[in-house]
Amino acid sequence: MLGETDLNECFDPNADRLQEECGVFGVLGHEDASALTALGLHALQHRGQEAAGIVTYDNDQFRAERHLGLVGDHFSNAETMARLTGMAAIGHVRYSTSGETILRNVQPLFAELEGGGISICHNGHFTNAMTLRRQLIQDGAICQSTSDSEVVLQLLARSREKKIVDRFVEAISKMEGAYALVALTRKKLIGARDPFGIRPLVLGDLNGAPVLASETCALDIIGATFIREIENGEVIVCTPGGIESFFPFGKRPARPDIFEYIYFSRPDSILGGRSVYDVRKEFGRQLAREAPVEADVVVPVPDSGVPAALGYSQEAGIPFELGIIRNHYVGRTFIEPTQAIRTLGVKLKHSANRSQIEGKRVVLIDDSLVRGTTSVKIVQMIRDAGASEVHFRLSSPPIRYSDYYGIDTPVREKLLAAKYNLEEMRNYIGADTLAFLSVDGVYRAMGHEGRDKTNPQFTDHCFTGDYPTPLTDLSEEQEFAHPPRLVEVS
Amino acid sequence: MLGETDLNECFDPNADRLQEECGVFGVLGHEDASALTALGLHALQHRGQEAAGIVTYDNDQFRAERHLGLVGDHFSNAETMARLTGMAAIGHVRYSTSGETILRNVQPLFAELEGGGISICHNGHFTNAMTLRRQLIQDGAICQSTSDSEVVLQLLARSREKKIVDRFVEAISKMEGAYALVALTRKKLIGARDPFGIRPLVLGDLNGAPVLASETCALDIIGATFIREIENGEVIVCTPGGIESFFPFGKRPARPDIFEYIYFSRPDSILGGRSVYDVRKEFGRQLAREAPVEADVVVPVPDSGVPAALGYSQEAGIPFELGIIRNHYVGRTFIEPTQAIRTLGVKLKHSANRSQIEGKRVVLIDDSLVRGTTSVKIVQMIRDAGASEVHFRLSSPPIRYSDYYGIDTPVREKLLAAKYNLEEMRNYIGADTLAFLSVDGVYRAMGHEGRDKTNPQFTDHCFTGDYPTPLTDLSEEQEFAHPPRLVEVS
Amino acid sequence: MLGETDLNECFDPNADRLQEECGVFGVLGHEDASALTALGLHALQHRGQEAAGIVTYDNDQFRAERHLGLVGDHFSNAETMARLTGMAAIGHVRYSTSGETILRNVQPLFAELEGGGISICHNGHFTNAMTLRRQLIQDGAICQSTSDSEVVLQLLARSREKKIVDRFVEAISKMEGAYALVALTRKKLIGARDPFGIRPLVLGDLNGAPVLASETCALDIIGATFIREIENGEVIVCTPGGIESFFPFGKRPARPDIFEYIYFSRPDSILGGRSVYDVRKEFGRQLAREAPVEADVVVPVPDSGVPAALGYSQEAGIPFELGIIRNHYVGRTFIEPTQAIRTLGVKLKHSANRSQIEGKRVVLIDDSLVRGTTSVKIVQMIRDAGASEVHFRLSSPPIRYSDYYGIDTPVREKLLAAKYNLEEMRNYIGADTLAFLSVDGVYRAMGHEGRDKTNPQFTDHCFTGDYPTPLTDLSEEQEFAHPPRLVEVS
Amino acid sequence: MLGETDLNECFDPNADRLQEECGVFGVLGHEDASALTALGLHALQHRGQEAAGIVTYDNDQFRAERHLGLVGDHFSNAETMARLTGMAAIGHVRYSTSGETILRNVQPLFAELEGGGISICHNGHFTNAMTLRRQLIQDGAICQSTSDSEVVLQLLARSREKKIVDRFVEAISKMEGAYALVALTRKKLIGARDPFGIRPLVLGDLNGAPVLASETCALDIIGATFIREIENGEVIVCTPGGIESFFPFGKRPARPDIFEYIYFSRPDSILGGRSVYDVRKEFGRQLAREAPVEADVVVPVPDSGVPAALGYSQEAGIPFELGIIRNHYVGRTFIEPTQAIRTLGVKLKHSANRSQIEGKRVVLIDDSLVRGTTSVKIVQMIRDAGASEVHFRLSSPPIRYSDYYGIDTPVREKLLAAKYNLEEMRNYIGADTLAFLSVDGVYRAMGHEGRDKTNPQFTDHCFTGDYPTPLTDLSEEQEFAHPPRLVEVS
Repeated sequence: MLGETDLNECFDPNADRLQEECGVFGVLGHEDASALTALGLHALQHRGQEAAGIVTYDNDQFRAERHLGLVGDHFSNAETMARLTGMAAIGHVRYSTSGETILRNVQPLFAELEGGGISICHNGHFTNAMTLRRQLIQDGAICQSTSDSEVVLQLLARSREKKIVDRFVEAISKMEGAYALVALTRKKLIGARDPFGIRPLVLGDLNGAPVLASETCALDIIGATFIREIENGEVIVCTPGGIESFFPFGKRPARPDIFEYIYFSRPDSILGGRSVYDVRKEFGRQLAREAPVEADVVVPVPDSGVPAALGYSQEAGIPFELGIIRNHYVGRTFIEPTQAIRTLGVKLKHSANRSQIEGKRVVLIDDSLVRGTTSVKIVQMIRDAGASEVHFRLSSPPIRYSDYYGIDTPVREKLLAAKYNLEEMRNYIGADTLAFLSVDGVYRAMGHEGRDKTNPQFTDHCFTGDYPTPLTDLSEEQEFAHPPRLVEVS
Repeated sequence: MLGETDLNECFDPNADRLQEECGVFGVLGHEDASALTALGLHALQHRGQEAAGIVTYDNDQFRAERHLGLVGDHFSNAETMARLTGMAAIGHVRYSTSGETILRNVQPLFAELEGGGISICHNGHFTNAMTLRRQLIQDGAICQSTSDSEVVLQLLARSREKKIVDRFVEAISKMEGAYALVALTRKKLIGARDPFGIRPLVLGDLNGAPVLASETCALDIIGATFIREIENGEVIVCTPGGIESFFPFGKRPARPDIFEYIYFSRPDSILGGRSVYDVRKEFGRQLAREAPVEADVVVPVPDSGVPAALGYSQEAGIPFELGIIRNHYVGRTFIEPTQAIRTLGVKLKHSANRSQIEGKRVVLIDDSLVRGTTSVKIVQMIRDAGASEVHFRLSSPPIRYSDYYGIDTPVREKLLAAKYNLEEMRNYIGADTLAFLSVDGVYRAMGHEGRDKTNPQFTDHCFTGDYPTPLTDLSEEQEFAHPPRLVEVS
Repeated sequence: MLGETDLNECFDPNADRLQEECGVFGVLGHEDASALTALGLHALQHRGQEAAGIVTYDNDQFRAERHLGLVGDHFSNAETMARLTGMAAIGHVRYSTSGETILRNVQPLFAELEGGGISICHNGHFTNAMTLRRQLIQDGAICQSTSDSEVVLQLLARSREKKIVDRFVEAISKMEGAYALVALTRKKLIGARDPFGIRPLVLGDLNGAPVLASETCALDIIGATFIREIENGEVIVCTPGGIESFFPFGKRPARPDIFEYIYFSRPDSILGGRSVYDVRKEFGRQLAREAPVEADVVVPVPDSGVPAALGYSQEAGIPFELGIIRNHYVGRTFIEPTQAIRTLGVKLKHSANRSQIEGKRVVLIDDSLVRGTTSVKIVQMIRDAGASEVHFRLSSPPIRYSDYYGIDTPVREKLLAAKYNLEEMRNYIGADTLAFLSVDGVYRAMGHEGRDKTNPQFTDHCFTGDYPTPLTDLSEEQEFAHPPRLVEVS
Repeated sequence: MLGETDLNECFDPNADRLQEECGVFGVLGHEDASALTALGLHALQHRGQEAAGIVTYDNDQFRAERHLGLVGDHFSNAETMARLTGMAAIGHVRYSTSGETILRNVQPLFAELEGGGISICHNGHFTNAMTLRRQLIQDGAICQSTSDSEVVLQLLARSREKKIVDRFVEAISKMEGAYALVALTRKKLIGARDPFGIRPLVLGDLNGAPVLASETCALDIIGATFIREIENGEVIVCTPGGIESFFPFGKRPARPDIFEYIYFSRPDSILGGRSVYDVRKEFGRQLAREAPVEADVVVPVPDSGVPAALGYSQEAGIPFELGIIRNHYVGRTFIEPTQAIRTLGVKLKHSANRSQIEGKRVVLIDDSLVRGTTSVKIVQMIRDAGASEVHFRLSSPPIRYSDYYGIDTPVREKLLAAKYNLEEMRNYIGADTLAFLSVDGVYRAMGHEGRDKTNPQFTDHCFTGDYPTPLTDLSEEQEFAHPPRLVEVS
């Protein structure tokens, strides 16, 4: 039975999804640096839709445009681009996971340094940022934002190292957590990835100009060649003279976030040497092997469930049909409904394609199950459209633990798989059968024998509770009273 | 070879599509009339994205909100809906096919009548509107808009009939062309469809409240029951006391626009008793029969080509894959490119999913070919992604004639099929083979033996040049100098 | 004692003033026509602050910009002016006295005519407009606005006369009330003043280009030479070939509105051959003669009371001082006050200049008394600042009747002088003494012996109840139910 | 002869004025703290029109609203005020004299401190701020704004003192220049005035709640009682328990800025125990004694010249008339003129009141002469209106030196009195005679014998070049290259 809050979620098209985190981009030595960055951010828009920013350096000043909204809303005309002068640029798209959604938290951030300046943007989350922030404030730092990313900038500004790269390394060496960082100084474009390589970062080349981006799809849009991924724990420094690479924390096995494959990355991106689309189809194939069912049609929850549904369909030999139509005009908010409207059970984002559903046994495929509030409505919609059976299949394991590395997950108590067992979940969702891909199934679809319990190949704490780094803020934060801060009320 | 203009079109995501026309909606006798109308228009958003308007009547005043932009941009909060009081409402989404895109042209339109008032909105195009408008102005009428729809309102205001329905019928009896009209008076909700039934209009019921809408998907979103289509030439008058139907022009065979099946209607809508999705799959199956090819993968141009591609894939036994990924964050304009950016051949809307393309023989499926400027780039994109062969298949016949019934088609000289033969088109597009669905194939997919040449079952002039009505304005307009009008410059 | 409503008025800087009506401007045959019109409207801004509009004709199209807000808010950059192309322009500033304040009511209005077009703007009010509007609607006219000015346009469009000037004359011959009209056709700039000349209109010349304006101050700002006033009942037609004048209703003695001298016109304008500033000083001198008092200082209510106060001071030999300081940053609304703030008696617009008030006998001069709600607060403010006596003097007679010619007066019951006698008013205002300029005193200050009762030299109904024209709508409107209209709710 | 730039200034109504600097306000312990602050800032609006901000503390968080524009534009509704919760508030109006006009420079500024927080706003200018800023950046500080005021905040954050008042005193003890500071912590409202008392600051009381404000007019508007001025070099700390006062830098004679009397303060404010209006009249009287002339009328340049003109008129026995009318609807920008318009010599702000000028010998009174570009046009306007003689009188001495304490003066080379002698100025201005009030005349009008050369009673460097404090940044800034900073390009 749905409560008031859950009913309201019918009207929030993004409710009950893991929210994407952030995307970063940088380019050095191209006369269209800002336009290329806008295009790259556009390709990374799925990683963050709340705000976008670009900072350039034009050999005189750093220049910034930072806005709430989509890339195309604010970086869409020649005039804006013309103001962002310079041959070097970095940019950021953001879905706020820490820090309020206010303009001063929009990245890239900037610090004026003695005789220089540095701008930074960040995908991920530092798990000790609030602890360090308290120490910095005790030490006289003024933090203008409430973003965890500003801590890197404060540490960098206070470093006594002479060279800016040394300052950068000193700063990130104090940070725990997951990060892909891109920074711009007067002469350098810097990229860095956390020691486990949790968040992705790739290097490309556009006619000799180095490009850094969260995903390869941002290289594709500008026609840049994909060179390689930045390695876990690597710091890469691009100058007009060439590219240098450092491993300031030594080398260790990578452990990228499995959720990039399951949900976050764009299907046409190449990650860890594999097509994300192919991996998702493999999840679907593996799911078909683990949880087969006799049925008439395989229907994806669009758009995220499509590749897995195609894989399931092909493996199971059951026809794939678009049994749910997605309305692409759904904005981020739509209509605060009256009670009368609410009881109509309006679906703004999805509608059943009755001709493909009616009288059929339906295998419904989605990529993940978070709180289940949307799933319960989609299953009901399929039933209302006349399905004789609904078999709900998820192409990832049950999500039982919250994320602290830059993914916006509900608190544990809200996670359906954290409070219910399989049968309880099936009953809640209202499906005839319910099945998840197994954890080992995920690894098998990725080409492994299964999960290496001693050295897991991926960051998979949402399924396993196995967090790769300390969670300092989480343990510390109980002890500190919430300090008064500045709230921009408009 | 692409000219300057064509290159610019890379950046206009809607270039080289037939533009949707308009959508209409109305409801009578429901306390959430305006919110239901907003929801219905949201479901019809694919029919027009430039402007949206709602007019209600609250037993005291007619109340209007009309805005440029999407439904969700302006009708998304309880406060706006609360201002649109009343138990009766009509609404309109618009893609301007005649009249400039300015606020005073946004529908529904309104006229204060003696002791009453009427609001009207319109999907379609009157082919004698400008001729009548000239006569009206000679006769002292003041036309505030430049929209063809205002002519109906002027004729209605000048009618000497006593009853408003008689005035309405007198007005539309003078109009030629295609129309689905929805009108609201103090006591009545009126619907009307042109004598050929070129534009669609359906009747639904929501707990006793009659609902009119361009497509059944607008009934589905509010949970209304689909009753029947308004027939060609029918005028339907809904009052709290019941529904009356008239056929003021007599009865004749319907001849609905085939393009509603090919492209305009939403796949989950039911039109002429058939699922649009099923029809599109049948177009694909028929295409596979007419133009088979040996290949490794069937790839749709998303999203419009997907159902036909599934049909082709299923008929031909070639796997269906999402070989092209669509970026859903593309707005209506994006980045005026510098020359340097332009030469990168940036694709904002589509990107190749290389893993499904590389080294493969690709059957590329789209629903229609207009000027070909986008197709040439998509074929090139598929080749760049490593396809060994590209076989381009269109699930509709060559478009050789312009539309004058509310679809925004280029002038004939811009239509690729109007100036080139098949081989020239193949060469221009750059595909290894090119094939269109035949005209008779369209009719066969619709369940007919073929096109009935004496009494064609559909309006199909874009393929055949066979226009069902006179095109009065087209022949008259040469003779009249362009009169000075008012241009709202901001 | 002040009620809740009156207290709120502390916060409305324009409460308790007669509101200005409208200003019109036109120029023909100057390459900077639109910029000159913007400047002219800026000089006439005191006549209407709610909206402004300009229409030009550029030998191809009429071009319009119409906005809510001040002239300087919307007509302040070269880009806007560049869009308003053409050598002929008319413009309007508006304070709405009839018709809601919505964009479609903003003038100039426009009608496309057969082979032509006309744009009109209007200062004044037609006292039979609503009656004619009902007849027009019965006859099939569609009125887009609710403005009385549109009626002229509808009549003009329906005229069977061939020549546009004849159509114009036919239209205005049906109108009662007060008006200064300016109209623009493809070849002509037309001006017209009502038979009594109630509203002002002057003719100027700028290097051969004729200019029409409500006041001479609009000629001064652009450096145009003042030629003469348009006479009462005159229609003037300017073409590139010269200026023609008609008196279609015959000639009769003028009877201009005395309020233009008392309050509306700018002090530096010349009206009826006299400096408005001089006339106001004369009102003050006459007031000093009629209502002398022993006092230490003459203090004007700024800014409107300043000239009369100077006249009073000079006649009475009592020093003039700025005992009240006006805050010029007061916008049209400011702070919805909490009860706590309200009880502070905050004055946003005025503050007492204590050093000029404390311990002094003050003669306080204002130009008119409407409801008295502001006066009561100003007198209290003067007392709070330490005045030993407050003698309140008004440089016009008691306002006892509402206006129906374009001035926004309260209903009679709200007029202080309509419900109270002098002593009751004095008591309400809280002054030690109170005196008004006499009606005959007004006429004497204007150079007459007194008011000519049989043929009054001025329109002065607000003081005398003597309305020069029929008030058709006023008597008719009781009989007609309010018809449903369209309310633009946003 | 006027150059291109000077001609453009015809269209900038604020050109050729000394620009006001800033105004500050604070209140502690009143439930309407934010509304009172908005009202206070409204009364101080003449001190800065570019931006306004308010910060409150509500015992939980500090809350901020900061906007470009007027107080009334952004703090005018109950909803905004309701968001600014709390019983304590400070606010700021700003005319930017240092730091660009961008949002992050709008005050009050805020710093989160260990277990606390402080918000600061500032009227004046620190003459060593840029030098200290360089040192702070070398030491690892990140300065978000480019405002000189942030330096105080950075010093305060870095102080090792325990108590916030001690930190505040340590910070300001490092600052040179002119300042009136108001600060808000969780428990305290703090005010401070520079050792010379150059910028003003007063203390008031509203039913027990302490109020700090730049001028007494801000106390008057809310009905607060004026208690006393903050003394030069005083730090005042208000808590709910009472008010404490410190003189951390010892006591010395005050030397307030004479320009507050001449131009900046509102005429109804009381400053140094004297009515500003009275002082200005005295300047006029003294001017009449020093520079008498035979004439028919005394005409002020409105509004700033009015009190001095009244003084001159009364002393000289020549009638005072409003010979120039000011248009109060002039915004900050108006119409980028075409060359044709420019040559018309349009005056948007002022117009001649010809009836008071024509054929008369005019004494024209203004408060100060900066570059003279406006004066030359006003004199010409008076001549064009028919004056037989124009005698230009300034109620302050020639401005020969730039200000560095918060007043926006042109560079020295632009100051007319810095490059021309009296006769050259007269010739440039085009007056028949020209005279300034003498420096000693200023002091005499203030009640002194004359200027005390060893211990001048006022800060008067603009006339004398005698700067009371070191001008560190001025001497240092040559030596440092301009560092790259962040420019917010939108």
